[in-house]
Amino acid sequence: MRALAKVTSMVLALAIASGVPAFAAGDDGIDAFLNRTAYDWNHGNLDAFMRGYENAPDTLYISSTKVIRGYAAIRARYAAHYGGSMGVLSFSDLSKRMLGPDYAVVVAHWHLAMTNGTHPTGIFSLVLHRSSGAWHIIADHTP
Amino acid sequence: MRALAKVTSMVLALAIASGVPAFAAGDDGIDAFLNRTAYDWNHGNLDAFMRGYENAPDTLYISSTKVIRGYAAIRARYAAHYGGSMGVLSFSDLSKRMLGPDYAVVVAHWHLAMTNGTHPTGIFSLVLHRSSGAWHIIADHTP
Repeated sequence: MRALAKVTSMVLALAIASGVPAFAAGDDGIDAFLNRTAYDWNHGNLDAFMRGYENAPDTLYISSTKVIRGYAAIRARYAAHYGGSMGVLSFSDLSKRMLGPDYAVVVAHWHLAMTNGTHPTGIFSLVLHRSSGAWHIIADHTP
Repeated sequence: MRALAKVTSMVLALAIASGVPAFAAGDDGIDAFLNRTAYDWNHGNLDAFMRGYENAPDTLYISSTKVIRGYAAIRARYAAHYGGSMGVLSFSDLSKRMLGPDYAVVVAHWHLAMTNGTHPTGIFSLVLHRSSGAWHIIADHTP
């Protein structure tokens, strides 16, 4: 549980590339969670994408300049930034570490291919919480 | 345990401003940990400062451009970036959330007052692990 696994999941990469979710069997469910998150993003489904965040006032999104507190404010920021043009999201160099049985930290490079030809990229870290068997993001640091 | 506390600790702020650690009584020990970390930094004591990180190959430091893996590599980066001129570190707008009994996430704005007159600032998020009663950083995202 403690070891930080360098994930080299071809299933994940292929799933994201093709836009089809791959629910890896037998793991902690985090790969499946990330697959589904990217799938929802890549289908321009902000409502489904936002279900990846814990719907709570203490959920955090940390941008490069500010800390956004609460699910509603995070959703509003996504809608303002990406409304109508979300691009295609993929991840690479994914690392994860369990923090006890029901929390985890995930670090990865993210890549967006936007329809205007730009390719923004960066590194995110996510703190995940598992409740009733489902993972949700409780802190998303994406500067 | 679950609530994300907006910390407005004058003790912490004063301690950091004065360079004297304040070990707040009765809390989870995270404020004391952060006080000591800033104290060590502000005394230019990189060896002591580095004791705030878990001495393990899976400890992560995430900069704006890359993921640095392992205690030794993290220490080498600090030595290269700040050797001889560490400046005065302070924090503001600190939030923390326990992740079960022995992990926590801390988010804050950091401010450095450098001797050359510059004042770099930003937002960090730390994942902390408590082992044998002592907190250590296992993932530091400081873009």
